[in-house]
Amino acid sequence: MRASEIIEKAKKEGRSVLTEVECREILKEYGIPIPEGYLARSEREVREIFAKVGAPAVMKIVSPDVIHKSDVGGVKLNIQSEKDAIIAYNEILENVKKNVPEAKIDGILIQKMIPEGIETIIGGTFTPQFGHALMFGLGGIFVEIMRDVSFNIVPISEEDAREMIEEIKGRAILEGVRGKISVDKDALVNILLAVSSLLKDHPEIVELDLNPVIALEDSAFAVDARMILGEPKFIREREYTREEILEQMRRIFSPKGIAIIGASSDPTKLGYAVLKNLVESEFDGEIYPVNPKGGEILGKKVYTSVEEIDGEVDVAVLVIPAKFIPNEIERLGRKGVVGAVVLASGFAEVGNKELQEELVEKARKHRVRILGPNIFGFYYTPRSLCATFCTPYYEKGGTALICQSGGVGMGIIGYSRSNRMGVSAIVGLGNKSDIDEDDLLEFFGEDENTRVIAMHMEDMKDGRSFIEVATRVSKKKPIVVLKAGATKEGQRAASSHTGALGGDLAIYDAVFKKAGIIRASNLEEMLDIARALNLLPVPKGENVLILTGAGGLGVLLVDACVKHGLKLMRLPDDLDAKFREYIPPFGATGNPVDITGGEPPETYEATLKIALEDDRVHAIIIGYWHTLITPPMAFAQAVIRAKEEAEKKGKRKPMVAVLAGDVEVEEASRYLEERGIPAFPYSSERAVAVMGALYKWARRAGKI
Amino acid sequence: MRASEIIEKAKKEGRSVLTEVECREILKEYGIPIPEGYLARSEREVREIFAKVGAPAVMKIVSPDVIHKSDVGGVKLNIQSEKDAIIAYNEILENVKKNVPEAKIDGILIQKMIPEGIETIIGGTFTPQFGHALMFGLGGIFVEIMRDVSFNIVPISEEDAREMIEEIKGRAILEGVRGKISVDKDALVNILLAVSSLLKDHPEIVELDLNPVIALEDSAFAVDARMILGEPKFIREREYTREEILEQMRRIFSPKGIAIIGASSDPTKLGYAVLKNLVESEFDGEIYPVNPKGGEILGKKVYTSVEEIDGEVDVAVLVIPAKFIPNEIERLGRKGVVGAVVLASGFAEVGNKELQEELVEKARKHRVRILGPNIFGFYYTPRSLCATFCTPYYEKGGTALICQSGGVGMGIIGYSRSNRMGVSAIVGLGNKSDIDEDDLLEFFGEDENTRVIAMHMEDMKDGRSFIEVATRVSKKKPIVVLKAGATKEGQRAASSHTGALGGDLAIYDAVFKKAGIIRASNLEEMLDIARALNLLPVPKGENVLILTGAGGLGVLLVDACVKHGLKLMRLPDDLDAKFREYIPPFGATGNPVDITGGEPPETYEATLKIALEDDRVHAIIIGYWHTLITPPMAFAQAVIRAKEEAEKKGKRKPMVAVLAGDVEVEEASRYLEERGIPAFPYSSERAVAVMGALYKWARRAGKI
Repeated sequence: MRASEIIEKAKKEGRSVLTEVECREILKEYGIPIPEGYLARSEREVREIFAKVGAPAVMKIVSPDVIHKSDVGGVKLNIQSEKDAIIAYNEILENVKKNVPEAKIDGILIQKMIPEGIETIIGGTFTPQFGHALMFGLGGIFVEIMRDVSFNIVPISEEDAREMIEEIKGRAILEGVRGKISVDKDALVNILLAVSSLLKDHPEIVELDLNPVIALEDSAFAVDARMILGEPKFIREREYTREEILEQMRRIFSPKGIAIIGASSDPTKLGYAVLKNLVESEFDGEIYPVNPKGGEILGKKVYTSVEEIDGEVDVAVLVIPAKFIPNEIERLGRKGVVGAVVLASGFAEVGNKELQEELVEKARKHRVRILGPNIFGFYYTPRSLCATFCTPYYEKGGTALICQSGGVGMGIIGYSRSNRMGVSAIVGLGNKSDIDEDDLLEFFGEDENTRVIAMHMEDMKDGRSFIEVATRVSKKKPIVVLKAGATKEGQRAASSHTGALGGDLAIYDAVFKKAGIIRASNLEEMLDIARALNLLPVPKGENVLILTGAGGLGVLLVDACVKHGLKLMRLPDDLDAKFREYIPPFGATGNPVDITGGEPPETYEATLKIALEDDRVHAIIIGYWHTLITPPMAFAQAVIRAKEEAEKKGKRKPMVAVLAGDVEVEEASRYLEERGIPAFPYSSERAVAVMGALYKWARRAGKI
Repeated sequence: MRASEIIEKAKKEGRSVLTEVECREILKEYGIPIPEGYLARSEREVREIFAKVGAPAVMKIVSPDVIHKSDVGGVKLNIQSEKDAIIAYNEILENVKKNVPEAKIDGILIQKMIPEGIETIIGGTFTPQFGHALMFGLGGIFVEIMRDVSFNIVPISEEDAREMIEEIKGRAILEGVRGKISVDKDALVNILLAVSSLLKDHPEIVELDLNPVIALEDSAFAVDARMILGEPKFIREREYTREEILEQMRRIFSPKGIAIIGASSDPTKLGYAVLKNLVESEFDGEIYPVNPKGGEILGKKVYTSVEEIDGEVDVAVLVIPAKFIPNEIERLGRKGVVGAVVLASGFAEVGNKELQEELVEKARKHRVRILGPNIFGFYYTPRSLCATFCTPYYEKGGTALICQSGGVGMGIIGYSRSNRMGVSAIVGLGNKSDIDEDDLLEFFGEDENTRVIAMHMEDMKDGRSFIEVATRVSKKKPIVVLKAGATKEGQRAASSHTGALGGDLAIYDAVFKKAGIIRASNLEEMLDIARALNLLPVPKGENVLILTGAGGLGVLLVDACVKHGLKLMRLPDDLDAKFREYIPPFGATGNPVDITGGEPPETYEATLKIALEDDRVHAIIIGYWHTLITPPMAFAQAVIRAKEEAEKKGKRKPMVAVLAGDVEVEEASRYLEERGIPAFPYSSERAVAVMGALYKWARRAGKI
């Protein structure tokens, strides 16, 4: 029987657990090696099969009613002779009949006992966001105590499979330690790939454990298998095609006309704030205030309804109470509005799921896309568009910021303003009733005004689509994500090992890795990375050089480089010699290049030029120490001179700086930042963290 | 023979490795259980001993020339009969004679084979900073692959020993998993304590491995032992008594008179900058410029030498070239100067060790304490004393900052000024030729102007003294340390497991833990913690409450609490009900208390009052969201009203805040900070990190 037939049969019989014989059939179909074995239903068959399989053998009960075979005396190991096999056969039958009297017994599986090898575990578990997550780990105590496992999302590539194996902390165990064998990793890779195919073809297998998979020197065998059937229901399926989404988003972010439904003349009302932001901006589209009262506000004619508007309306910002919104969506749909920005709360977030469902249903029907509800709106600086009741923000730049929570969004606006960070967009997602990160990723992926995408995320609705889009976009532009709720261990009900180990945390990690996403560990880090990656060019290789005026700072920068996965360049002798010309004779050689604290700005400039002009150096971290001979601005100007001279010669490299000194370093940091060098005063790690993020992205995106 | 005799004998014989029989004798003396066993020198003795020991037995070669016994066929396991014992005896002798022909053979050890249990490893290794580090770990693959070990410094307490066991990641293995036994942890504790005593009594044992120590249900046995002798040389030994140090430091930080050796009238010289800082400050001691040229500078009479000064001089700041300094120290000593602040570089840091040794020798002889060389000087704000060429700094506060590197020190000054952080002192340590962190800890520990001590540290000279002082001081005041070079794995030559695993990183971690020190992971975190702990009162218990106006911020704060080891209070029903009176009906219950974004300042105030007045709440983290109804300053004022009202009722609790919003949150953060609440705009983790640091300290100091 083929897998589909086996699954069909089990379903018909109302079974969710497949028997071992059924599992073995399925594994065979997918080319997953299992120990030779056959089902015995009589003493005669025991003799025949034992002769075929040979000693030592293992015997196990096969019954749809027995799940934990060992617990009921249903397993016998190391059977050495035909006589022992007969005894074991009868003992197993007796045990099972005694312990599970009602059990339907299919027979007893006699299989070849696999020699001692390294126990591993391979499994899969279905998640409603992402589909199946695949797990690999070392078996036994390692998986149970150390939770030393790795995940990826089905389907996986061969490279993914290899990475899963290499990510295990105890991977050295697979390579032979303490006189143990070095196992056949290719065999494990093949099983991982086969399980991925199996789960892709048969998503009804919602949980799967191959435990153990015994890895040997030249092979690997799935010795025991469990498969559980269920209904793999996704939270959300993609509604629109990529082309449709791109067209919708283009119209939303660059509308010809924008209506404010619920525009108000009362300056204390949100309906006034939104209108004022639009009217007072340089937004060059049409602005249509809508309010049944009519009249004029801020010099604009007020329409009594959206139908009354003559011109084309792409976006409507709704500043009316929640209960009126679903019907308004119908009107907007008829008018041809593509984007409805729903600021109001009072939907799912307060428990009113019905109202949100009504909203979404009407939006789908009329092909209106909903942003929100429960958001502050959005900003798109290339059009000077501030569709929000918050304060306007126009500073243009290459970073698009997306946030699920309004509170976090406000933090983003303040940080951007305070750090004069240019942005292309800031978008609130709120309840994500319709538009979610996938839609925005599609748009920002293509948007020529956006170089970096940063997002704060609490949950994910359509994770498969997210992976698909993010994997594509992250090849072109860095995506940095702050996943909130990361420490909440997934409390998922699961009857398999894999299910129990696949908490939200582990799965999200696998998703981000697969999609080439940089993960930020807190809001401040996300903002730092978003800000810096907009400035930094892509490095051409792994060689990072630290150039510092203070040895003590150099040591802290080295610590940070190790922490953030940066590779400190080993200086070739000729390059080292070039630097040494500028370093006092007692200065240390190598990387960090420590010019020592007594040097003038010219030494910073000269050594930086050497680093910039040598093609073997790919990225530079500068550690500045405030001295009388090199005050902060003199340092900053020297750095920029070197940078600009190098750029004239076509040399562009990512550079970051930390500045230790008195308060003048703040001005110097701004000077550097405005000229393309992310700079951090009073800090030893933030600069390195953003460089680390750049490299994580560049590696994943295949740039280096 | 007793341990001391055994060690004496080995030394006399020029041996650094003790034999197994010698190790067994020593272990017996210290009450460490070993399997019963005796040395056999003939077949007759084999028969006698086997009869005594019984089956199963283990037999091992005993020879001072054989270190790796298994490798040369010198071990036989699981001997079941007298006959097998005789065969094994002869085989071992043959193997050893073949493989190590020149080996002197003492005999063959026959010992009882310990039943299968859990393999652990206990070891010790001597370090020149700290003395012996003690290690505990799970044996075999766990120690080799997972490096799952814990360290402490000899001598340890029973509590330390228990903690070492509990710190192991795989500790569940000791508690019975997969049908294995639950082992006798008390027996392991006793062995750890005994090894600690042994190494304390006999520091010549520079490396020790008990590997494995087999742990059983009701006992534990050291089955194999290795001890290596050496000369335990410390980097530095304490020179002065605690009373002497306190007196010296008191005079240095509050001098009656201060001399500037090398005072200059040239404003471009450091000798001018130092004098100017002193003259223009409110420092009320006497200031004596010294320069052979005499005359007057900045209205002060210049003395041609220190001898010429009539008044008492406690401190001299030396702004003269390095080569003149040792002789100057002699003059200072004769004058009765206690502290010489040596700014100049040109000593050990540039390879001129001889000059530094001369300096130290002269200082010791004349009992002058040296600060530096190679430093910027020091600040002590209670006396408005800026003994430095850097810009003056007077902002008074409770934080004393110590830094080894000048570059880092400059960063501290800038950060302090920018954040208006009050300090009691900022001290450069530089080469630490004499005064080091121990001396300063003694002083700041007693200094009533200092509440928190923060230090940047690269290396440590007298680690034992540091542990002793820091352990004492940290009970009273928090100490936060930024250890630079933390990622540099210790490349220590070591012939034992314990030695190889005890890299600098692991040992420093153990030292800081033992001494009750908070470890900062980078410069910015050290400064944040130093600033915040000066403001925060000590919590009375573990119950942390999050109060937030934005659910999204609440989630990020929970993540950060988990990361920083804070315990989120489970709200009792009556307290939850009190909060609910102020929360919209759809708001979530529990902790975080989410008042939602639509609430006015009064709701922040009212809910904060509830939290402050309920004694079951011990610490509060506030998450603010900038809204039209509650602008930043209105929020900040509401918080301070609640705080001040609670304080009138005698309720003081540590509170920190994160503020998400537009740039006005920066002003609100300053307002909060000036009133005792560390506040962080655009951040989700920094506030929680400082609260976590406060708790780490409070727990270690036994405050909660």
